[in-house]
Amino acid sequence: MQPSEKEEKVYTAALVIIGNEILSGRTPDANLAWLSEQLNRRGIRLTEARIIPDIESVIVSSVRELKDKADYLFTTGGIGPTHDDITTAAVAQALDLPLVRNEEAVRILQDYYRNDLNEARLKMAMLPKGVRLIENAISAAPGFYFENVYVLAGVPRIMQAMFDSIAGTFRGGAPILSNTITCRLGESVLARDLSELQGKFPDIDIGSYPHFRGGLLGLSLVLRGISDARLREATDQAIEIIRKLGDEPRAVSVRQ
Amino acid sequence: MQPSEKEEKVYTAALVIIGNEILSGRTPDANLAWLSEQLNRRGIRLTEARIIPDIESVIVSSVRELKDKADYLFTTGGIGPTHDDITTAAVAQALDLPLVRNEEAVRILQDYYRNDLNEARLKMAMLPKGVRLIENAISAAPGFYFENVYVLAGVPRIMQAMFDSIAGTFRGGAPILSNTITCRLGESVLARDLSELQGKFPDIDIGSYPHFRGGLLGLSLVLRGISDARLREATDQAIEIIRKLGDEPRAVSVRQ
Repeated sequence: MQPSEKEEKVYTAALVIIGNEILSGRTPDANLAWLSEQLNRRGIRLTEARIIPDIESVIVSSVRELKDKADYLFTTGGIGPTHDDITTAAVAQALDLPLVRNEEAVRILQDYYRNDLNEARLKMAMLPKGVRLIENAISAAPGFYFENVYVLAGVPRIMQAMFDSIAGTFRGGAPILSNTITCRLGESVLARDLSELQGKFPDIDIGSYPHFRGGLLGLSLVLRGISDARLREATDQAIEIIRKLGDEPRAVSVRQ
Repeated sequence: MQPSEKEEKVYTAALVIIGNEILSGRTPDANLAWLSEQLNRRGIRLTEARIIPDIESVIVSSVRELKDKADYLFTTGGIGPTHDDITTAAVAQALDLPLVRNEEAVRILQDYYRNDLNEARLKMAMLPKGVRLIENAISAAPGFYFENVYVLAGVPRIMQAMFDSIAGTFRGGAPILSNTITCRLGESVLARDLSELQGKFPDIDIGSYPHFRGGLLGLSLVLRGISDARLREATDQAIEIIRKLGDEPRAVSVRQ
């Protein structure tokens, strides 16, 4: 770890999850957690996620707002061939680009469907002008990107294949490291010491998350930062605080 | 079902999920699905959800924007006693209300903690002026509401207890009913007929969601609406379309 890393630019990303089925609670979203983890590894912090319905005006305004707020904007969902797949057209509008027939996408669809390239399938080749395609090995329909806006599929396996195919192109900062400590202390018992600890480590983000497990209220402390040494130091001090207050930390997981 | 229901006001809700731990993907959110389902039953549609970090300015702007966009706004998370619990102060700012010591909340905390009412715990009694408390049987810290803004805990069991204690007060429309049909047809095979079906049933929201199960790509059609008769009619026609295209619907689940 270099000392200069603390002054590095923090790269940010926003995510728009498009789909009535997620918003209705019927289908649990699996893309946020996966993308957030992948971005973290590349030193890009997810700073906001929105779950919105298949309504054009909402997609347009969300994309317009968030593409200016973060270094990267990802959307998931709504790029298939059916009537409720309106993401591509809405993104074109948000980016002020005309929808045109993308010949590269047509070729990909032709290779995949051969003689079965019907009208619905060809709809997936109508893309905003000037985008770069994001291919994937699982389905024929390509995602695409333009400037900092990345339009991905909603089906997790396909979305992941798309992300992987372009993952090498992202510019990020130092990976964000995190440690988790769990204990049985109440939040309000720890609050004062934790607040002091946070004051001593402004470069480490310390979160306190109560949870129920096996009917008992437990507490997870999550410490995040880019300096391994500082993170270890803050983690050690948090463990000392817990011991001082009469509990023994139950688990310390370290992940990169 | 009354014919007049189609013209009923559609009640809407927005949800702001506050917490770095959700945004980092470390803790999967369990509140959206539960709340969406509960609201659906009461004829209230969740129209947008945002997952945002523990950053005051982001909470303030999200609350300000969404409280005007929907009939109800719910927030979850960040109302505990630790330094990273900043939701209450941010909501006060968003509503232009001063933070004051809420004597009713102090009494609840006194009952719960008896002689252990420390400074961190008393922080949970500093609430925006004029709010109504939302009690819960599990933890001492009350949620609160003001006009159409409902501030709930992040821990699912506590959030649910809070919602239940005020659920009777929500004004909603007719419950939203839905049917799900699954099949093995590709989306692009169904696309044209489905689009026609949607045209015939503008009062039914028809969604098409591909998914992987057991390594195979399957498709769920979800039909939603408030008229039971219309929903059944559209469902029957969707089943006919699937059969006409050579597949047999694998499951039809009906839920209210």
